[in-house]
Amino acid sequence: MPIGTSRQFRPLPVPNVKVGGYWGEWQDAVCDSTAEILLDRCVKARMLEQIDVNVPSPGIVIPIIHWLGTAQMFWDSDLAKSIETIAYATYRKPNPELEARADEIIDMYERLQEPDGYLNSFFQRIKPEWKWTNLRDFHELYCSGHMIEAAVAYFQATGKRKFLDIMCRNADLLVARFGRGPGQVRGYCGHEEIELALVRLARVTGERKYLDLAKYFIDERGTQPHFFDEESLRNGRDPSDYVFKNYEYNQSHLPVREQRKVVGHAVRAMYLYSAMADVATEYHDDSLTQALEALWADLTGKQMYITGGIGPSMNNEGFTDYYDLPNDSAYAETCASVALVFWANRMLGRKPDGRYADIMEQALYNGAITGLSCDGKTFFYDNPLESTGKHHRWVWHSCPCCPPNIARLVTSIGSYIYGVADEEVAVHLYAESTADILLAGNRKVSFSQKTNYPWSGAVSIEVTPENATTFALSLRIPSWGKATSVKLNGDAVQADQLTEDGYLRIEREWKAGDTVALDIPLVPRIMKANTQVRQDAGRVSLMRGPLVYCLEGTDNSDNLNAVVLHQGASHAATAVIPDLRGAIAIDLPALREVATSDELYYESDLVAVEQTSARFVPYHLWDNRYPGEMLVWVRDNGASK
Amino acid sequence: MPIGTSRQFRPLPVPNVKVGGYWGEWQDAVCDSTAEILLDRCVKARMLEQIDVNVPSPGIVIPIIHWLGTAQMFWDSDLAKSIETIAYATYRKPNPELEARADEIIDMYERLQEPDGYLNSFFQRIKPEWKWTNLRDFHELYCSGHMIEAAVAYFQATGKRKFLDIMCRNADLLVARFGRGPGQVRGYCGHEEIELALVRLARVTGERKYLDLAKYFIDERGTQPHFFDEESLRNGRDPSDYVFKNYEYNQSHLPVREQRKVVGHAVRAMYLYSAMADVATEYHDDSLTQALEALWADLTGKQMYITGGIGPSMNNEGFTDYYDLPNDSAYAETCASVALVFWANRMLGRKPDGRYADIMEQALYNGAITGLSCDGKTFFYDNPLESTGKHHRWVWHSCPCCPPNIARLVTSIGSYIYGVADEEVAVHLYAESTADILLAGNRKVSFSQKTNYPWSGAVSIEVTPENATTFALSLRIPSWGKATSVKLNGDAVQADQLTEDGYLRIEREWKAGDTVALDIPLVPRIMKANTQVRQDAGRVSLMRGPLVYCLEGTDNSDNLNAVVLHQGASHAATAVIPDLRGAIAIDLPALREVATSDELYYESDLVAVEQTSARFVPYHLWDNRYPGEMLVWVRDNGASK
Repeated sequence: MPIGTSRQFRPLPVPNVKVGGYWGEWQDAVCDSTAEILLDRCVKARMLEQIDVNVPSPGIVIPIIHWLGTAQMFWDSDLAKSIETIAYATYRKPNPELEARADEIIDMYERLQEPDGYLNSFFQRIKPEWKWTNLRDFHELYCSGHMIEAAVAYFQATGKRKFLDIMCRNADLLVARFGRGPGQVRGYCGHEEIELALVRLARVTGERKYLDLAKYFIDERGTQPHFFDEESLRNGRDPSDYVFKNYEYNQSHLPVREQRKVVGHAVRAMYLYSAMADVATEYHDDSLTQALEALWADLTGKQMYITGGIGPSMNNEGFTDYYDLPNDSAYAETCASVALVFWANRMLGRKPDGRYADIMEQALYNGAITGLSCDGKTFFYDNPLESTGKHHRWVWHSCPCCPPNIARLVTSIGSYIYGVADEEVAVHLYAESTADILLAGNRKVSFSQKTNYPWSGAVSIEVTPENATTFALSLRIPSWGKATSVKLNGDAVQADQLTEDGYLRIEREWKAGDTVALDIPLVPRIMKANTQVRQDAGRVSLMRGPLVYCLEGTDNSDNLNAVVLHQGASHAATAVIPDLRGAIAIDLPALREVATSDELYYESDLVAVEQTSARFVPYHLWDNRYPGEMLVWVRDNGASK
Repeated sequence: MPIGTSRQFRPLPVPNVKVGGYWGEWQDAVCDSTAEILLDRCVKARMLEQIDVNVPSPGIVIPIIHWLGTAQMFWDSDLAKSIETIAYATYRKPNPELEARADEIIDMYERLQEPDGYLNSFFQRIKPEWKWTNLRDFHELYCSGHMIEAAVAYFQATGKRKFLDIMCRNADLLVARFGRGPGQVRGYCGHEEIELALVRLARVTGERKYLDLAKYFIDERGTQPHFFDEESLRNGRDPSDYVFKNYEYNQSHLPVREQRKVVGHAVRAMYLYSAMADVATEYHDDSLTQALEALWADLTGKQMYITGGIGPSMNNEGFTDYYDLPNDSAYAETCASVALVFWANRMLGRKPDGRYADIMEQALYNGAITGLSCDGKTFFYDNPLESTGKHHRWVWHSCPCCPPNIARLVTSIGSYIYGVADEEVAVHLYAESTADILLAGNRKVSFSQKTNYPWSGAVSIEVTPENATTFALSLRIPSWGKATSVKLNGDAVQADQLTEDGYLRIEREWKAGDTVALDIPLVPRIMKANTQVRQDAGRVSLMRGPLVYCLEGTDNSDNLNAVVLHQGASHAATAVIPDLRGAIAIDLPALREVATSDELYYESDLVAVEQTSARFVPYHLWDNRYPGEMLVWVRDNGASK
């Protein structure tokens, strides 16, 4: 279906979907551990002292690095993402104590908020003189954005309106302050986030003004005269004295509709594109969608790790050159893959399209969830695809953005499974779950998925409308699963005739008890990277379904770069990994080079080769057992033939 | 011959050797361009203003980075190395104008020197209050060291004593100040250099006190209580607040005789070991030699690039983990390979040994000389073994240590060719040259080498004693050249019976006209790295004689990582590269992978392969023609069989 049709797919509110199985275990880990850990560690970092007007301000706890801004400047966002996580977690597993702690923080924010709606603990309690002086670097609107998201989540999960009301007052201040009207500031935030938050706020409140402000921020970004130039001059700073050299870093180098190349800080880029996609959906804005489609092709065709990790460089926490994807030094921040999931999901707002859903799933299962340990207690910030044994999850970080980001994604994963339009339900993800859907505001349909996905490809979906009703059900057929077979109430469906853009579309009258069964083949696939990715030259990786696999030292002993694959995927065998949630390992025959000399360099006839078997495990589960080396791209000498 | 015998091999003074051929061309480039460029760029950097008491001090030109010290702090060393270069260059090609400029600088230093001998323009003209407050970080003795080296060179090359006298007064101040006597400071410099300089000063002046001070600095280093701890406390600094965490950075973590692992800043380490080797030679100190032999094995067996580049990390400009040798991000500073040549040369002080001479040659022809362009006008600071096309020589650097370091090595290369003991002459390097040697202080022998080495392996050495005389001639047989044939006056010599430690030793009475002819086979060799070097896994490099080869984009088009070698060195053909000083290229049949898909990742059956020929050129000559990609370690699929 072409751009610009009237279909608008929106995600379900988190409370409408209950997941079990694979994602249920992740959610339980967050409910049982992560949610409380996040709050405890925020408290330990002294965040509450910053927002509580009844105690002295802690002042500058983390020294300010002027050229970067500072971690402390966006503590409100860390707390907000933690509260968002708690909202979803306590909905799944009631935890009155934790909810009471969140209520207490919300009360603190209520006391802190100024009469005009302003709310930002750093600028109120530590540097009042910096208020509204540097939108480029200071994350002021970014913090509002995360607090809005948290408020929406807290309202949806608990029914309590206080936080939502606080943040509506804050958003009203922004509506008044920013825009093109007389006396308004024609500005926007250096770190995008407020835009997508305003869309969420508009959807839950029904208030158009929030949507319009999101659209204004997007429309205004990168226009000339440049707001960040003018803001710098107004505040006595030289615009050319900017550590990131140019505005590509925050995607304000061009008006957004003219952008075709994904540049700069990865999380910022993804949050911007997410909001652009939302606005494109809500306003049927084809000009945004055209830019987004080009940006999507640019990212996924030239700048993405096979894990869905993005942003290879630590220097700008972002993008570098095309096809520059170093494995051992990959930054690939957890937040960036989380944000890619956000964007992909929102690209599905105008129609189901496997281009977006496939990558959403790939980033979710590999780039994002890797950031959380199985026990929910430790975290990866950066996600390399090769480790010499020194890269491990940490307990906390001076910039603790990733832990609550992956935790809120895990606990809200239910809302990523379906896209709902007035006359159509799209199934983007397969996951053991039940969902309550309201079509066109009045037709109740519940969905129940039974599956052991991603370990098994068998999925059964039972559709139960309150009353028999007609709508289209669009089932994603992964691009790697073209041999998927589909049955409706036991009868085979001619999938290839009904499939468009990677979705099998069944339009009919649905009755209670109707069941669709998919059998998605999960055969191991040997993958190569484009020959322009020099870091992967001569190497292959292994995938099964949406999962990227890797070698770990604990299964294969050290020096993983001495392992050479020489036989194709048809020689693969699967096995369940003990003590790892029923995860599936893949064993492949392999060779291992063995030095017959201690010399550092030698003429080439001194290398011997021995037969071995290489055990691959899902990348996202690495570093959950005995710590050691890890490798995704493995040397190839025949496996790819 | 075991450690501790009485043989002591010393290098010839630079003026005693005149080189032509390959090295003559490099020396001409320095004489014609580099020597003057160095001085011009030092002037442009405002260095002369800092030393000239007749003009106002420029103050802090380059902002001081406290935790690192600053480039400006060691400007005296940059000027000194430039004057050392000028000394050698004007000896080869008289340049009265340039010599006059050097004389003028020496006059400035004479005016600047304090009555007690103190001389350091930074501490005299910019920060007098910092004098003698921080030997750990401030390079104070380091600068004296380079100025002493320059003074020795200037005296040897021009016969003028003024600079030497200045620096003897400075050295006398150090002799008085540092030591274990009453009232003396038990300190040493954080950046080693003064030690090897004092040995040179002792050798040219015959003054034992300078040698003894060098030995003191070496003996004292790393002993407890630790000098840098005590110095920090004395000057109000917390010793634990050291950016490099521990004293491995400057090799003072242990007494030097207990050191077995090469650690820290690479240039510092090499300068220390160089001085240790000198002192071991001069004092017949077996305990130093034992430590040095272990350190040598550690460096060359686990931490050295095949180019003789050392110190892979930019963070500490030095060493990291064993077998950690990344190619694209290799720091491998030019200065570090220059300093490895220094160390290797000094390891030959106690006996000829191919272990040291082979690496000296390898570092010289690959790690070091690569730092200078063929025209002598631009420089590499870091020397990666892979480039995506963005790494190029620069005109100048805020820390301009490398340009004068490689320039002084090039112009003094003659002194590395021979090692001279009382009854023996060792030929360490083969190079078109003539040399005047004085054996045991009274027997004159001249040597004339005729060769087109390193392009050809044919070498003819004519030995011309003033009067027929008996001594041993030790000829290096490179470890890669075991099939070398040797003839004495036309008759074959049974090389294998006379060869020990990689040197063929001919002891006889030598008469005028005696000629030794060597034929060293220069066949291309396919090299592999130890399987523990993960970055080189599945790859090979190509060497011919001492030269490491590489692929350049200009010869092979882009995307060098798509090139796969599949045939052995016996398929290699050689050719002369146009416009590159008669350098020899090597052509090998190869395959090139070609993508049949634009996708970033695909299942493995989409890659095609085409036949091609790969042109290899000497690594040290890369980036002298059309700029582009470069690659040393090339993918292997059969070439190493």
